[in-house]
Amino acid sequence: MEWINKQNVLIVGLGLIGGSYARALKRIGCRVTALDRSEKTLGFALENGIIDDGATSVTDSENKDKTIRLINEADCIILALYPNAAIEWIKDNVGNIKEGIMITDVTGVKSCIVYEIQKILQDKAEFIAAHPMAGKETSGVEYSDDRIFRDANYIVVPTDRNTEEAICWCENLGQILGFNKVSVLSPEEHDEMIAYVSQLTHCIAVSLMTCKDNEHLKDYTGDSFRDLTRIARINENMWSELFHMNKEPLLKEMNLFIDELTELRDLIEADDTEAIKAKMRLSTERRAKFNSSKR
Amino acid sequence: MEWINKQNVLIVGLGLIGGSYARALKRIGCRVTALDRSEKTLGFALENGIIDDGATSVTDSENKDKTIRLINEADCIILALYPNAAIEWIKDNVGNIKEGIMITDVTGVKSCIVYEIQKILQDKAEFIAAHPMAGKETSGVEYSDDRIFRDANYIVVPTDRNTEEAICWCENLGQILGFNKVSVLSPEEHDEMIAYVSQLTHCIAVSLMTCKDNEHLKDYTGDSFRDLTRIARINENMWSELFHMNKEPLLKEMNLFIDELTELRDLIEADDTEAIKAKMRLSTERRAKFNSSKR
Repeated sequence: MEWINKQNVLIVGLGLIGGSYARALKRIGCRVTALDRSEKTLGFALENGIIDDGATSVTDSENKDKTIRLINEADCIILALYPNAAIEWIKDNVGNIKEGIMITDVTGVKSCIVYEIQKILQDKAEFIAAHPMAGKETSGVEYSDDRIFRDANYIVVPTDRNTEEAICWCENLGQILGFNKVSVLSPEEHDEMIAYVSQLTHCIAVSLMTCKDNEHLKDYTGDSFRDLTRIARINENMWSELFHMNKEPLLKEMNLFIDELTELRDLIEADDTEAIKAKMRLSTERRAKFNSSKR
Repeated sequence: MEWINKQNVLIVGLGLIGGSYARALKRIGCRVTALDRSEKTLGFALENGIIDDGATSVTDSENKDKTIRLINEADCIILALYPNAAIEWIKDNVGNIKEGIMITDVTGVKSCIVYEIQKILQDKAEFIAAHPMAGKETSGVEYSDDRIFRDANYIVVPTDRNTEEAICWCENLGQILGFNKVSVLSPEEHDEMIAYVSQLTHCIAVSLMTCKDNEHLKDYTGDSFRDLTRIARINENMWSELFHMNKEPLLKEMNLFIDELTELRDLIEADDTEAIKAKMRLSTERRAKFNSSKR
């Protein structure tokens, strides 16, 4: 299944990421349709040429008929929803999906949704999971912009049930969207990685802000404090769901980090300067490698 | 005592910060001299017009005589040394300092040095501590550049022994150097603040790098991981000394943060979504205030 223009792409959930997908796919000539709960969102997207057509998922009969028609016409579907909502949507709409199409997603956690969605779909359509590691501190289709993909990573997350064809199709989508790098990881590898590089870092940023009343310190903070807490402005609905759905890997990484920081605290308490310096050298050496690999 | 051009300023320790002070003070017409252990450093600074004269602190008689002469001629002295070295230098050279001059410093910890230096000096000269909260990930006079002060904070840290005149003189120095904001804090307030906004953040960045072998994750890290670990490249000699000399305040802040992160971990483990969201809302609200106060 190739990415040809004139194909119908249905995006379910037209937020920052869904909208940015829509912009990139319109650019290569796809017919892009969308489902979203919000009439205002669809109106904005239609007025600004971000999508060709759309329907709200509300239950009045007119919108219901149109929703079913858009699902029916779709040559592929992109679920740009929160993890639980993605599973629910597939459950509710599996009957209307065209046989044999590709379905992918954009969620930041994988094990907890990919197996379940594949089980619901059975052989009706193929679900190949993907994680576009891009975002902004703002949300909503109004802020959508496919330039956010340019410096970011796109990860295809297949299971044993996936075909080679689907993996290629999904890698190809990552390239079309303009991602800097496209990789493949298993759901378990993905979830461990994301628990460490993304979820743990958000937990740290939040805790650094909440551990102390700090308003009176505003005038004294340098770049380091600002860097470490930039992501402390956080969408609590999305992130609490992501934490919940990746609970075991996240708890493991949090424990690793808390133990390590506690060890450093104990070394400082014991005045073990040599051991402290050894940690700093390891940290410096590892971070230098990240710099040299920086895009 | 005012900042008039033609006065002799002696900078002891010509690293990144000492060199940057020298550049700014030469610009307003001061005669800037320097003492440094390294002949190469002094040679570079002389060749590049960063200082007017200098001597190494080695013990051959020619350099010793010149060192004593430069100390003797100084109308004010800036100690740009590590904390312990600053105390040692005052002990060794108090006899050569001109009566009644101002002496200041640049170290990142205060309680542990300011009282001791004031005790050694007695009424011979006035030591008024200051912390220029500026830096780079590089060190050495070769990288000195007084533009690093432009977006940064300068904190004057007086004790009860200091005169109004000295506090004004030191605030004035911060303005001359081009700092964005000049404030005044007590040594204890300073050390608590710096333990939280600077030392704790460095401990977190180091522990995030050292808690896990992460080289294979380079391709998957987004901006959040890179932001949180930028300061994980760390000068182990300087920072281990700063941690040691601010041990009690730092341990207190580390405990606060570890307890808070452990509490968040427990909430995630217990699926207490409402309490997790409450922490995220507090974090978002506090961080938003930092944004609005961003320079």
